[in-house]
Order: sequence, then C-alpha cells, then structure tokens
Amino acid sequence: MDRPYLLFLGDVADQLAAKTAHGIADWRPEWCVGQLRLPGCKADTGLADLTLEEAAAKGAKTLVVAVANSGGSMPEHWTDTIVKAIGLGMDIASGLHVRLGQLPAVAAAATQHGRKLYDVRYTDQTFNTGKGFKRAGLRCLTVGTDCSVGKKYTALAITKEMEKRKLKVDFRATGQTGIFISERGVAIDAVISDFISGAAEWLTPENEPDHWDIVEGQGSLFHAAFAGVTLGLLHGAQPDALVLCHEPTRTHMRGLPHAPIPALKDCFEPYLAMAALTNPDCRFVGISLDTHLLSRHAADRLLKSTEDQFGLPCVDSLATGTASIADALEALCAN
Amino acid sequence: MDRPYLLFLGDVADQLAAKTAHGIADWRPEWCVGQLRLPGCKADTGLADLTLEEAAAKGAKTLVVAVANSGGSMPEHWTDTIVKAIGLGMDIASGLHVRLGQLPAVAAAATQHGRKLYDVRYTDQTFNTGKGFKRAGLRCLTVGTDCSVGKKYTALAITKEMEKRKLKVDFRATGQTGIFISERGVAIDAVISDFISGAAEWLTPENEPDHWDIVEGQGSLFHAAFAGVTLGLLHGAQPDALVLCHEPTRTHMRGLPHAPIPALKDCFEPYLAMAALTNPDCRFVGISLDTHLLSRHAADRLLKSTEDQFGLPCVDSLATGTASIADALEALCAN
Repeated sequence: MDRPYLLFLGDVADQLAAKTAHGIADWRPEWCVGQLRLPGCKADTGLADLTLEEAAAKGAKTLVVAVANSGGSMPEHWTDTIVKAIGLGMDIASGLHVRLGQLPAVAAAATQHGRKLYDVRYTDQTFNTGKGFKRAGLRCLTVGTDCSVGKKYTALAITKEMEKRKLKVDFRATGQTGIFISERGVAIDAVISDFISGAAEWLTPENEPDHWDIVEGQGSLFHAAFAGVTLGLLHGAQPDALVLCHEPTRTHMRGLPHAPIPALKDCFEPYLAMAALTNPDCRFVGISLDTHLLSRHAADRLLKSTEDQFGLPCVDSLATGTASIADALEALCAN
Repeated sequence: MDRPYLLFLGDVADQLAAKTAHGIADWRPEWCVGQLRLPGCKADTGLADLTLEEAAAKGAKTLVVAVANSGGSMPEHWTDTIVKAIGLGMDIASGLHVRLGQLPAVAAAATQHGRKLYDVRYTDQTFNTGKGFKRAGLRCLTVGTDCSVGKKYTALAITKEMEKRKLKVDFRATGQTGIFISERGVAIDAVISDFISGAAEWLTPENEPDHWDIVEGQGSLFHAAFAGVTLGLLHGAQPDALVLCHEPTRTHMRGLPHAPIPALKDCFEPYLAMAALTNPDCRFVGISLDTHLLSRHAADRLLKSTEDQFGLPCVDSLATGTASIADALEALCAN
C-alpha cells in the first residue's frame, strides 16, 4: 500500500473502537500524515486533524479506515468521505469485515478514478485444516483476560526487544491492525471457522530451533463472542510460552456489560489446560498490564504486587518495556 | 431443492468421508433414488448403485455431492460427473467448502442447461457477534470425544423421541448433513470465525420456557483442528444439557494419527468448564456411544458398564434409541 496514510476514524464512540488507528499511529507514526475525524468522534490518536483536501496537499496516498468496531461493519454515512478521498487521488485500505468493493459507491469511484481498494482482513491464501503436529522453532502467544487489553502491543514490544538483542524473531500479526503495522499476517477472525487453527499453523511455520515467533493473540478464552477464535489460534500456534495481558481498570468484558472480567488468578489454568492439546510443555512466562489509565505510582505498585503474587515478570509493554519477558524467553530457549 | 436425490459419493477413501450420504440415506431414505460411486470408492450407503442415466430415468432431480472430506475441497476428477448430471437435467447440491459456482465447468454447464447449484454450507444470512445473554427456552447440545462420533445422529434421535412424546422441540442443524436432512440450519464451520458464537445464538433463539432446541454439535474440544468451532458453538448455544458422544473403537483423533482419543472420564470437566461462561448451570444428561462396529453383546456390555461408571443414561442412538436421555431432559424441564 502506498504511503503516507491518512487515518480515518469516522465518528466512533470511544478510543478502543479506533484501536487500528492508535496501533498505526503508535507503531508507525512516520507513515502517517494525520487523522480525519467526523463530528462526534470520541477517539483521538494525537496526530494532526486534517481535512481530506489538506491531507491530499500533504501527499497522503492511502486513506486507511482505521477502526475496529465489533462485527466489522461500515456505517453508511462514512461512504461520502471515502468516495471523496478516492476523487482526491487516494487509495483506500480497510480492515473491516465488509469488503470495500461490496459498497457500490466506493467500487464505482475506485473504477472511475483508477484507485486501489485494500481489504487487509481478507486474503486469497487458502488454508488447510489444522494438523497439530509439533513444529520446530519456538512460539510465544499473547493471551488476554478480555479483548483489547494489549495483546498486540505486548507482542510488538517483545519482538522489538528481541530484535534489539539480535535474537531470531518474527512478529506474527493475526488481526487487521497488526497487519497494517507489520505489512503481513492473517486476520484470524476473518478466516472460515473450519480453518482457524490451520491458518495459525500456516502463519507460524516450522523454523530454526532457536527462532521465536511472537504471535499476536486474539479475543479471550473468557469472551462469549470470540473464545472460539482464541482457542483455534492457541491450538494452531502451539505456543511454548504465553503472556497474559490485562487492563486493570476494565469493569466488564468488552461489549458485554453483563459479563464480569475474570480475575488474573483464574486465567492461567484454563489457558494452559487448553494449550496442552498441541503443546503439553506450554507455560506462562509473564504478565502484561495496560496501565495507561492509572497514575504512574499506582501502576508501579500494581506491577510490583502482581509480579510478587504470581512469581512471573510483570510489565507494561509501553511504560516499562518488556525486557524481563524477553529474559524469560531467552532462558526458555537456553533450556 | 427438488427431490428425489441421487447421492454422489465420488471415490472417497472410507465410510466416514461419505457421512453426508450416510446421514441422508439413514434419515431420509424416501428422498433418495440411489447412490453413484466412482471406481475405488470405499463408502457404501446400501442404496442402489445407479449410473447417471439410470438415475435420470428414475426421475432424480438433484445430484447431491454427499461427501464430507476434511477441508471441504472437490477433487478435480469429479467435475465430469457433475457436468454430465447437469446435462441430464439434474440440479446439483453440495456441502463442501468450495462453491459449485467457482468451478468453471460446473458454472458453465449450469448456465447452459438452466440448472440450479446449491451450496448448503453457505448462507446469505449475516450474523452479529455473540452476546452471551441468557435466552429463554432450553437447549441440549451434543458434544464429542472426536469428530464423526454420532453427535448429529444423537441429536436427530433425541429430537425424534421428543417429537413422539409431543414435547416442544426443534432439531438445530449446524453442519451440511444436518442441513440436508432438516432443510434448514447453519453450517457453523463455514461461518467467518468472528461470528461462530453469534451464528449459534441466531440458530437457537429465545423460545418458550419449555421448548427444547436439540443442537447438533461440531468437532470436538479435543481436536486440534476444530476445537475453536466447538467452543464457539458451545458458547453461542449456551446449552442447559450436554450429551457426550463417543465411538469406542476409534484409536486416534479423526485425521490426526498422532493424536490419541481422550478417555470419556477426562471429557466432562473441560466441556462443563468452558460451557459455564454462558451457562453456569449446564450439566451432562447422558452419553451416546456409536457401537455399530461392536458385536451386539459387546455393545450392550459397554453401554451398561459406561452407565454404571458415570451414573448417566448411556445409549446408542440407533441401536437402543434415546428414551433415557429424553427422560433426563423432561426431568430437567420439570425442575
């Protein structure tokens, strides 16, 4: 996809709904000219607010529909903006479930102006069903108490730390935002359900014995909507190591006001019990807390007490970095 | 779909690969004129072997590609048969993942001869993501130690028994064969993975307090390829009652020669632990063994010993019927 990007946030109702925009802005700020928000938008990446015309003048090549609403549909009133961007010479990229080419006005404009439409959630790649054979190489998967609790950021941060140490490592994107950031991967939640674990096997192939795939987790085993995706990814990735991700201020499961967040202590055993099917040696190597809504003091106290409680390295992938988890992975590799 | 059907078995390598044909032949024999098998076919429904011409002469209206191979692809050398059937005036129905219209020769023949192509695994229905709210009505889901262990037959047999008792009951098909038999349902394994549990919720909607949905299970929580589908269905169906299905002569997981079958005793707790997320009151009400490969004497002994071991009604859905499980469901409803 041609860069730079203009990130389109629409008029989403909260920060989390724009997590694709946040991910790109946080990890690839040099790829972005700014953001475009409609009236009422409750999200903000901190990038400059630009009109379509301003972005075009700054050389924006692709408008990225950078939202991640549950269900992946596209509000009808966003179409005008997309059509106008095409008219100004931009390609369009989206990670929604709905395909850009299925929106008649968008498809017509793209044809008329000769622009490209990218649906990163979809791939022409066909997958086999999962096989469950043990593959060479090492894999670390981030898992969560809920959706949107830092699984992707944690995986990216661990990868960055291991790259700094010159270890053999690849970030494996499993969702739209990770694919935008790493320019490859498979949106596991858009795969036909028969092939979830097969797609995860394809994404994390056999490798050198000391090579790590750091795999972005999806959903949560405790989320009534998405646990199937989580489990298929867990089985296909056959992780040697898990990192449990959590957002300590969350009061209920994302999108499910009636569903409480599980306690950290109740999460380890179910994940390990399920992981054992394809890797009986799987273990937790760390905990990653997204503490950005806490004061620094409260965050530090919580990280320390969590580390003491569970005897595992406990980090905030942005605030503290992930050195202690990378240490644990290096130690695992040496054994 | 117009009836009667000619069941096409191709040249599949074993009986289980033709389980769609067996399902239709066993539950809807009056809809079938016969079967068509290619040289080398290792499956046999017991229906009359017919050529395409013989079937056409007997009035066959639809050729049903009645196989269920892992991955759902279509061997190229089956195309000639399908094209010829179209030329003889038959519509084509398939439950494979590959869509009939995507096979150029098949699409061309259907257009030329004005015949219909049915892909029962696909639906135009769009689904929401799962919500996990408790819905009124009662639901029973069949689950398994493995794939292809009688989950569909058990659900069909329980439904039939409850219909005989004039109870309020619906069979809910979740796979291609169940859809062929009941003429409705959703092939859960063909749904985009983000919507597995949402599709299961749609399939088993709110209902009268004393109405039972008997839901056909899919895959197995212990199968490395399909456990994600199983879990999403389990969460979406939010069953009040589970029936554990098992084939006692199976030596390894279907399609995975390296993977042992779990012991019955090790299956109850993981299913209940996972089911509790959307229905903490879920319980097992019976065990269903597919004993057709055992002698009647050995089968009876095994049914008795299994019933004694676990204190649950234990049936073979075809050989013994499912009266004791229907009793258990009636008792649950009365509480």
